[in-house]
Amino acid sequence: MNNEIKLFCPATVANVACGFDVLGFCLDSIGDEMVVRKTKEKGICITKIEGYDLPLEATKNVAGVAAIAMYEHAQPDCGFEIEIYKNIKPGSGIGSSAASAVGIVFGINELLGRPYNKTQLTYFAMKGEALASKSEHADNLAPALFGGFTLVKSTLPLDILEIPTPKELFATLIHPQIEIKTSEAREILPKEVSLKNATTQWANVGSLIHALHTNDYKLIHRSLEDIIVEPYRKQLIPHFDDLKFAAMQAGALGCAISGSGPSIFALSKGKDIAKRVEKAMKSMYSKTDIAYNTFVSTINTKGINIINP
Amino acid sequence: MNNEIKLFCPATVANVACGFDVLGFCLDSIGDEMVVRKTKEKGICITKIEGYDLPLEATKNVAGVAAIAMYEHAQPDCGFEIEIYKNIKPGSGIGSSAASAVGIVFGINELLGRPYNKTQLTYFAMKGEALASKSEHADNLAPALFGGFTLVKSTLPLDILEIPTPKELFATLIHPQIEIKTSEAREILPKEVSLKNATTQWANVGSLIHALHTNDYKLIHRSLEDIIVEPYRKQLIPHFDDLKFAAMQAGALGCAISGSGPSIFALSKGKDIAKRVEKAMKSMYSKTDIAYNTFVSTINTKGINIINP
Repeated sequence: MNNEIKLFCPATVANVACGFDVLGFCLDSIGDEMVVRKTKEKGICITKIEGYDLPLEATKNVAGVAAIAMYEHAQPDCGFEIEIYKNIKPGSGIGSSAASAVGIVFGINELLGRPYNKTQLTYFAMKGEALASKSEHADNLAPALFGGFTLVKSTLPLDILEIPTPKELFATLIHPQIEIKTSEAREILPKEVSLKNATTQWANVGSLIHALHTNDYKLIHRSLEDIIVEPYRKQLIPHFDDLKFAAMQAGALGCAISGSGPSIFALSKGKDIAKRVEKAMKSMYSKTDIAYNTFVSTINTKGINIINP
Repeated sequence: MNNEIKLFCPATVANVACGFDVLGFCLDSIGDEMVVRKTKEKGICITKIEGYDLPLEATKNVAGVAAIAMYEHAQPDCGFEIEIYKNIKPGSGIGSSAASAVGIVFGINELLGRPYNKTQLTYFAMKGEALASKSEHADNLAPALFGGFTLVKSTLPLDILEIPTPKELFATLIHPQIEIKTSEAREILPKEVSLKNATTQWANVGSLIHALHTNDYKLIHRSLEDIIVEPYRKQLIPHFDDLKFAAMQAGALGCAISGSGPSIFALSKGKDIAKRVEKAMKSMYSKTDIAYNTFVSTINTKGINIINP
């Protein structure tokens, strides 16, 4: 068995318009890299973090907290040291903390001979996510681990469903360089919603799941609507409406806030349209004084994976 | 072309636990019969209603109102007379008014050479439903017309999705002989629900749709949960909790109020379990002083159909 493993830890989009707190999908174009190495010395030691300034101390680091939760459960005879090469900017809304948490538990599990399944790994990773967002949720973790589209039916007990991914779906992402904390994005939400709006939302969740099963792109378009969360959170993202309008005019099937933002995603049928949507987003946001970056990605149906040496 | 048609107009279950106002499925064991006949004299004339005491006057009858809406749109050179043989008790919660409304528009459409598709027929039938329940909804109409499980994604515009039906699903129904008006059952509901509960509900709707696509009976079991509507409406049905407990103990996948009640449905894997659930329901309800009846049904995947002469 190897004593070292190198991983690609993908970025993810949570919520997917109508599926607040439960739906997510996995990206391909951007992700962290991580090296996990067995050590004789016991414990979890993060030896290096490159890319962004994050705490090396394991108990203060999302990935570290996830690793400790798993380590305490597994009680192995060895320890682990971890190097994290962050490409996903923390707070960008595409699952930066989830990628770290998933990477570390997946890596340790591989080096231990896979004692845990992916749902159990999600459970440990949630302990890390709780540090970042003040609540245990799995809507970024699940797609990062399982790949494709996932539905977190419940977190207690943890119940994760893998939803089929239509082959021609492409994602376009734009990251306006502003800061929104997940905890703040949660506080802006109302505690109560009208039964009427909630009913519309669960009709959309149901129809999106049906559309993903039947490769019905027109129905994906009609289902990617969020009348519950977007009206509140979009206030935190300058020019959201203009950006969404530009994406839809360029042919996107849908466009919404990625997770708690500030990143915004669009889904399109085919790479050409996804590229056109990217161009439209750039063109619109260039008129503002806010820095941004964009990318186009396939839907990553594998999820986290081992990088060949 | 025939000048007369005889129809079986099936009973239906709306809401299906988690899918308040949007989900429904079609039954086989019980339904109205209806004869629709072309006449030289113009207009809509209900000539006979057997089984239950309902108004013959078309403008005061659910089926009549639906027929008039369609008739005014189609403007045919003939009229129609209708005989309705009711088997579904009005107000029982298994789509009595929907069966009538669907029957009449389906029948007239057949006799006119099918100028309308099923979604258009649903639209006309909704005009009848509005008379019965004071709101235009289609969660009983859609399964009665299309058969199987349906998701009414929206009513404006009308958007109906046909969801696959796992082959081994059977329904058990019990109808406690008490009266609950649809309008009253709506008034008891809260206008607002917590975002937390709404999120749980849309996770359940999504997972039920996924379960129906994947024939995952265990997931159907985990998804048939209603934390939004049932806590309020069950107060209108004596011994609801005991009945549900008995059904679940007997092996049902789920048990909930059918539409706005008072009927209660259970879904089971296989006819034997569905029969056992029926026995358990009978055994429990026999201890009360409320009259009731029960039946077991396959899921009717065809919906409304023509009875051969």
